[in-house]
Amino acid sequence: MLRKKLKSFIESVLEANLRLPREGLVFGTWGNVSAADRSLGVVAIKPSGVPYAGMKPADIVLTDMEGRPLESRLNPSSDLPAHLALYRAFPELGGVVHTHSTFAAAAAQACRAVPCLGTTHADYFHGDIPVTAPLARSEVSRDYERQTGEAIVRTLRRLRRKPLECPAILVAQHGPFTWGKTAAAAVESAVVLEQLCKLAALTILLGGRWKPIPEYLLDKHFLRKHGANAYYGQRDDSGR
Amino acid sequence: MLRKKLKSFIESVLEANLRLPREGLVFGTWGNVSAADRSLGVVAIKPSGVPYAGMKPADIVLTDMEGRPLESRLNPSSDLPAHLALYRAFPELGGVVHTHSTFAAAAAQACRAVPCLGTTHADYFHGDIPVTAPLARSEVSRDYERQTGEAIVRTLRRLRRKPLECPAILVAQHGPFTWGKTAAAAVESAVVLEQLCKLAALTILLGGRWKPIPEYLLDKHFLRKHGANAYYGQRDDSGR
Amino acid sequence: MLRKKLKSFIESVLEANLRLPREGLVFGTWGNVSAADRSLGVVAIKPSGVPYAGMKPADIVLTDMEGRPLESRLNPSSDLPAHLALYRAFPELGGVVHTHSTFAAAAAQACRAVPCLGTTHADYFHGDIPVTAPLARSEVSRDYERQTGEAIVRTLRRLRRKPLECPAILVAQHGPFTWGKTAAAAVESAVVLEQLCKLAALTILLGGRWKPIPEYLLDKHFLRKHGANAYYGQRDDSGR
Amino acid sequence: MLRKKLKSFIESVLEANLRLPREGLVFGTWGNVSAADRSLGVVAIKPSGVPYAGMKPADIVLTDMEGRPLESRLNPSSDLPAHLALYRAFPELGGVVHTHSTFAAAAAQACRAVPCLGTTHADYFHGDIPVTAPLARSEVSRDYERQTGEAIVRTLRRLRRKPLECPAILVAQHGPFTWGKTAAAAVESAVVLEQLCKLAALTILLGGRWKPIPEYLLDKHFLRKHGANAYYGQRDDSGR
Repeated sequence: MLRKKLKSFIESVLEANLRLPREGLVFGTWGNVSAADRSLGVVAIKPSGVPYAGMKPADIVLTDMEGRPLESRLNPSSDLPAHLALYRAFPELGGVVHTHSTFAAAAAQACRAVPCLGTTHADYFHGDIPVTAPLARSEVSRDYERQTGEAIVRTLRRLRRKPLECPAILVAQHGPFTWGKTAAAAVESAVVLEQLCKLAALTILLGGRWKPIPEYLLDKHFLRKHGANAYYGQRDDSGR
Repeated sequence: MLRKKLKSFIESVLEANLRLPREGLVFGTWGNVSAADRSLGVVAIKPSGVPYAGMKPADIVLTDMEGRPLESRLNPSSDLPAHLALYRAFPELGGVVHTHSTFAAAAAQACRAVPCLGTTHADYFHGDIPVTAPLARSEVSRDYERQTGEAIVRTLRRLRRKPLECPAILVAQHGPFTWGKTAAAAVESAVVLEQLCKLAALTILLGGRWKPIPEYLLDKHFLRKHGANAYYGQRDDSGR
Repeated sequence: MLRKKLKSFIESVLEANLRLPREGLVFGTWGNVSAADRSLGVVAIKPSGVPYAGMKPADIVLTDMEGRPLESRLNPSSDLPAHLALYRAFPELGGVVHTHSTFAAAAAQACRAVPCLGTTHADYFHGDIPVTAPLARSEVSRDYERQTGEAIVRTLRRLRRKPLECPAILVAQHGPFTWGKTAAAAVESAVVLEQLCKLAALTILLGGRWKPIPEYLLDKHFLRKHGANAYYGQRDDSGR
Repeated sequence: MLRKKLKSFIESVLEANLRLPREGLVFGTWGNVSAADRSLGVVAIKPSGVPYAGMKPADIVLTDMEGRPLESRLNPSSDLPAHLALYRAFPELGGVVHTHSTFAAAAAQACRAVPCLGTTHADYFHGDIPVTAPLARSEVSRDYERQTGEAIVRTLRRLRRKPLECPAILVAQHGPFTWGKTAAAAVESAVVLEQLCKLAALTILLGGRWKPIPEYLLDKHFLRKHGANAYYGQRDDSGR
C-alpha cells in the first residue's frame, strides 16, 4: 500500500519533470521539479545534471524533509536546499519548480517585479509577480542554494503574499521559482509565468505602461477563478 | 432535417474551437468560440474550463439567444454573456471568438488602438483595430461579462464602425474579441488579428511610426478584397 | 518536347510556391511566386486566393508576357501586373516573389531601408535593402498593382542597383518583393530577406546602430560568394 | 586501429555539424563545425556550401593542421583558416563552431560585448561574452578568414580570458565563433550562446540594465559547475 503510494508519487514527479522540456521551458539538463509528500515525510526531486530524455522513475532522487538521501543512486538537483526551504516555510506547498525559462529568466535578470498588466495575469496571481533582492555576498558564499530559498520565503512574508495566491517569484539576477499544491500544479504555474512575462515584455514593446490594472479588476478575475464563489469551469460533480 | 442542421452547426463550432490551439492562439483551456444560428434561435459555445484535446460534439454547450441552457451537460464558457451582447447588437454576426493570444493580448494590455500601419492590415480592417475604454468599477462588480460585451458594442457604435469591416476589438487591460458571419470566419479574424498585432510590434521595433497609411491606400486594399467591385480571389463559379 | 519543357516549368513554379508555407513566410492564401520563360514567352503564377494545401500543377495560371491569359481555369494572383513590370524592366529575372513575411513586412511598414549591418547581409546583398517611396494617390487609384511594380523598377534604377546584386526591395507601407534568375532563387531570396530583417530588428534591440558596415567588408563578403573570383562553395564539376 | 579512430573522429564531426540545423542555429548551408585530433595531426571540417540534409561521412573534409587537404573530394568550409588559427593558439581546443545564429549574430552586429546579466550566463562563462574590434581594411583584403581567427585570438589574449572559461566570442559585424574540448562541446557552447544572447535582448526589453552581476555570484555559479570543487551533476563513477 505504502509502496504503491510511493511509486505513484515518484511517477508524478517524473511526469512533472518531463513536462518541462515538452513546454519549451528548459534547455539541456536545466530546470528541476520536486514534490513533498508530508504524510510519508519524503521529498522527490530530479537528479542533478541528468538529461530529460530517457529519465526513469529510478532516477528520481528521494530524501527526507531535511534533504538527507533515502537510498538513491544519484545526486539530487543542486537546487534541492532551495526547494526544502519553501516546503519548510509553507505547509500548503506540495510541489516546487525551478527553471531558467526565457522570458521569466529575462525578467529576473531585469530585477523588476512584473505588475499585473492585464486579466490574463489576474487569472493566476492576486497581485504582481514579486522579485527578491539580489543576494548579498554572505548569502552566496555559504549555503547558497538554501539562502536562495530563504530569500524567497523572506520576500513573500515581507510582501504578505499567500503562496497559493502568488505561485511564483523571480530570484533577482537568476530565474524563477514556482510552486503549487502538487508538482503538476507547480509546473502549470511555470508555464503560466513564462507566458505572463512574455506578455509583459510585448506590452512594453507596444507602448504600454508598467502599471497595474485597478484592484477591482484584479480581484474580479482572480476570485471568479479561485475564490469561494468561483464560477469558472465545471461543478466538481460534472466528471471533469 | 432540423436534427441534421443542428448536428452540423455543433460540429462547426467544435471545429472552430479546435482550430484555436492548432493556430497557437490559446494555452490550456483559455479561449472560446461561439456561433449563433438565428433561424434555430440557438447559440453554441465551448464549455468552461475544459481542455481542447479530446473535446467532443456532446461537450459543446447549447443555449437560447438569452443564454438559457438547452439540455447541456456542462457549463458554458463564463464569457458567454459577452458573446450574447454582440449577437444581440449586430444581427449580421454568426460567430464570436475570445482569446488571450499573445500579441493581441499585449496590445490590449497596452490599451492602445492599433493603427493601420500597412496593407496587410488594410486587407482585413477598414481602419484601425479599436480598443475599448477600461471598464469602470461598477461595470466590473456586476454582470462583468455582459458589461464587457456592452463595452465592445458601445465602442464600435461610438466609432461608427461596421462589425464586418472591423472584425476585432481589443478590450483594454484584457484581450481581444473577434467575429464574423460564421464561427470559422471569426476564428480566421482571430488568426489575422494576432499577426497584425505582431507586425505592429515589430514595426515599432524597426523604428516605424505609430501612424496610419493614407486613406486612399486603406480603401484600395480593403475594397479590392471586400467591396462590391472586389477583384481578389476566384469567381464564385470557379468551384473554389 | 515543348510540352515537356512547359510541364517542368509549371512544376517548378508550383514547387516554389509550396516552399513559401513550408518556410513560414505566408499565412493562409497570402503570397505568390511567378516565373517567366522568355523562350516560351510564358509567365506562370499562383492563382488568386487559393490555399497552398492541395495546390496542383493545373491550378498554376499561365499568361503571356503582357499578362493575357493562356487557357487557364483560374484567375492569376492579383499582383501579377507588379511581377510583369519587373520582368519587362529586367531581362535577367526569371522568378519573382511577393510575400507579407513578418519581419520584412514590418520593415516595409517602418518605411526604412535596411542597411547592411553585418556579413550575413553582405553575403546576399551588395548594399542595403532598399525601400520604395510610398505610392501617391494617383498611383493607387489606377493600375495599382502595375504601379507597384513600376515603383520598384524606378527605385532600383534611381539607386543604380543591379537586380541580381540586390534581390529584394521593401514596398513602403506594404511588404517585400524578391527575385532571382529562377522561381527557386527568388524564393531563396525571400527566405534570406526575412532572416536579414529579423537580424536587423534584434540588432537594434541589442543596442546596435542603424549604420552599414565598411564598404571593404561588404565587398569582401559579397564577392567571395558572387564575384568572378568567388571561392565559396564547390567547383561546378564536383557533382554538387 | 588508426583507421577505426579516424572513422569515429569523422563521424563525431559529422554528427556535430548535423546538430546545428536540429538546434535551429543555421539556415541553408550556413555554419560549420570542425574538430582537431592532435595525435593524428588532422582537422576535419564541413565542406563549403553543401546542404546539411543528406551529408555523409565522406563529405567531411580532412586537412593537416596547416589546412593542407588530405585526399578529400570537396572543398573545406571557406572559414577553415579561422578555425586553424584557434587550434594553433590554444592547444586545449578540440572543436570549433561558426554560425550566424540569430541572437548571437545580432549581438555581433551590435558590436557590444554581452555582460553577465544573470546566473544562466555565469553557469557557462566566467565573465562577459567578448566582442572583437571590427576588422581593419588590411585584415579584410588579405587572408581575411585567417585574420578573423587571429582577431579572435588577439582579443582573448588582450582580455586575459582562458578559452575554456570563455567558450565563445562575437566577431564584430559578423557573427559568433564557439569552441570546446571536442566538436560536441563546441556545438553545446553555440546552443548556450544563442540562448544567452536571447536572454540579454529580452532583459533589455524588460527594462533591465546592461550591467554585470556581482563577481561573487559569477564565481559561485561558474565554479559550482566547472571549478575543482564543482558539485553540480553526478560523480564520474555514477555511470552518467
